[in-house]
Amino acid sequence: MRTIWLAADGRSVEIIDQTRLPHELAIATLATVEDAARAIQTMQVRGAPLIGVTAAYGLALSLHNDASDAAIERAAAFLLKQRPTAVNLGWALATMRVALRDIPHERRITVAYQTAAQMADDDVETCRNIGAHGLALIEDVARRKPAGQAVNILTHCNAGWLACVDWGTATSPIYQAHDKGIPVHVWVDETRPRNQGAALTAFELGAHGVPHTIVVDNAGGHLMQNGKVDLVIVGTDRVTSNGDVANKIGTYLKALAARDTDVPFYVALPHSTIDWSLDDGMKIEIEERATDEVLRMQGRLDDGRIVSVEIAAPGSPAGNPAFDVTPARLVSGLITERGVAPATDEGLAALYPERAKRA
Amino acid sequence: MRTIWLAADGRSVEIIDQTRLPHELAIATLATVEDAARAIQTMQVRGAPLIGVTAAYGLALSLHNDASDAAIERAAAFLLKQRPTAVNLGWALATMRVALRDIPHERRITVAYQTAAQMADDDVETCRNIGAHGLALIEDVARRKPAGQAVNILTHCNAGWLACVDWGTATSPIYQAHDKGIPVHVWVDETRPRNQGAALTAFELGAHGVPHTIVVDNAGGHLMQNGKVDLVIVGTDRVTSNGDVANKIGTYLKALAARDTDVPFYVALPHSTIDWSLDDGMKIEIEERATDEVLRMQGRLDDGRIVSVEIAAPGSPAGNPAFDVTPARLVSGLITERGVAPATDEGLAALYPERAKRA
Repeated sequence: MRTIWLAADGRSVEIIDQTRLPHELAIATLATVEDAARAIQTMQVRGAPLIGVTAAYGLALSLHNDASDAAIERAAAFLLKQRPTAVNLGWALATMRVALRDIPHERRITVAYQTAAQMADDDVETCRNIGAHGLALIEDVARRKPAGQAVNILTHCNAGWLACVDWGTATSPIYQAHDKGIPVHVWVDETRPRNQGAALTAFELGAHGVPHTIVVDNAGGHLMQNGKVDLVIVGTDRVTSNGDVANKIGTYLKALAARDTDVPFYVALPHSTIDWSLDDGMKIEIEERATDEVLRMQGRLDDGRIVSVEIAAPGSPAGNPAFDVTPARLVSGLITERGVAPATDEGLAALYPERAKRA
Repeated sequence: MRTIWLAADGRSVEIIDQTRLPHELAIATLATVEDAARAIQTMQVRGAPLIGVTAAYGLALSLHNDASDAAIERAAAFLLKQRPTAVNLGWALATMRVALRDIPHERRITVAYQTAAQMADDDVETCRNIGAHGLALIEDVARRKPAGQAVNILTHCNAGWLACVDWGTATSPIYQAHDKGIPVHVWVDETRPRNQGAALTAFELGAHGVPHTIVVDNAGGHLMQNGKVDLVIVGTDRVTSNGDVANKIGTYLKALAARDTDVPFYVALPHSTIDWSLDDGMKIEIEERATDEVLRMQGRLDDGRIVSVEIAAPGSPAGNPAFDVTPARLVSGLITERGVAPATDEGLAALYPERAKRA
């Protein structure tokens, strides 16, 4: 199962509705560009790579109404503004616009679907390769531990197959290690406010049979202080050319704890997450989301009904920044589909000379 | 209103049942030592100072059955084992045993109630003095800001009047600054898994009219990175003689962020929270609590009913360490009822020469 695919009608797009997980594995249909935009905004789809692919399909859906240059620009601008932080959204839309630019209007729908499908397939292959490079890091830790002792990996949020098309970024090395018989155990940060860790990463790992333990976001520092974490691997929504990492709010705190306790802190990403136009993570726009995400919680009653409950003091206001920036100095390395690079200008430029030169 | 008081019958003890907040301000009656132990264990009362006073009253309640030396030892041991991390529990029980030691059995009930009541009154006075010393720190920040601009203080968990008898530890300087007309704004960490920040601190601050904003525990680093926090003040469950600080899980992460961003990080505490018998915070026993605190959440439905919902992937296990240790090197200062001390052996010894010498 993938997170997004072309429906049987050959026109609409189907997704796993991630707002229903872990309670229900529901499929939603995207028939229009508005559907795609809403899916991105309400986080029916989320995760930088999957946001990109969904936007690409959203643009393809828009062409059924109007395949003109002006309409493409309008649709792209509409999709782009749904979420500001993940750079894959802009990257995917730019890729689509380049692919459609010199194509006659009557062939644009076909090319748009082909390009979006190719992007999805490429993402799978990219994530597989990220996994292969990250696997070497896990094997390295496993070799230094007594035989049979699990490698303890902490991850934050969900950078799993649900965040991508398949495999995931941060989880790809974990799945590949597990499949190869290397004992791994994952500390899953709950990841408030939307609980992507407890709801999505734990769901994924459980379904794949990977041993894991959910902890609140507060616990990671304590675990590292007590030698219970060998390695941190997280995903990212945008990496600037100097190696600064925007990722789910709270990532910076885990990177600080990892540095303070000498635990390696790695970030897994595809090339499409690198923003070559920025050289300072503090310049990244940080999305501020609705405060109900903090003040309310969705969960399942014992009778199976899914409900939303108020969890905070009535009348108290909330703030909800969705991402933070981990400075490159705290990052042990960037795991990409081309290999592991230092989180520096030089490190990224060496892996992507064709992009670094252009920027 | 205080958090604990002698009931009108002159025998049983009444408390605010904090497991019902913020949804309901309910009073619970403790008629036996078992009631007191249960209130501590289930966190109807929580917060290091209040745990101490509740244990003292619990011991007084036990004397109605048996006021012998052996019975006192049994009751004290029973109360002590309810929660391992907060040292005030042991301190309060030791204080009670000393007070009762040379008292004839028939007078012990009277003396026990008097001692417990005195402990409650002393706690109020101690917290008031903590506030006076902490106020100077807030005034100092206010003087360096443009006139009228609020001093932004971040706090974790609840070290408010609900954690004590009145005033609170970390909140006492905040209340005193607010009452004096110094503009303050408090970032309230939600404090998973039990949400003492969103449920209790926000409730307290709201009732007192102090401007505040609830944020998830993940957000503090981002706020500090962006200059939105002037000062961190937290409480503590145990401070070792060298200044290491055990406090609610996640405190260590905020201390790391404060250090990384040059934000002062203060810890407020009464003398009864200092453990003179330990000189290394990593030796403190960290309570591991029930995993349902992580996997489920209590909240209020729109129709007003309080329910518990499952929030994590079904079948996934959880871990729930309740405290972590912030090394003294990350602490800017300890705010006590005797003044602000560096978080060092020398700093604490200078404030409490009579205890430091004995230990």
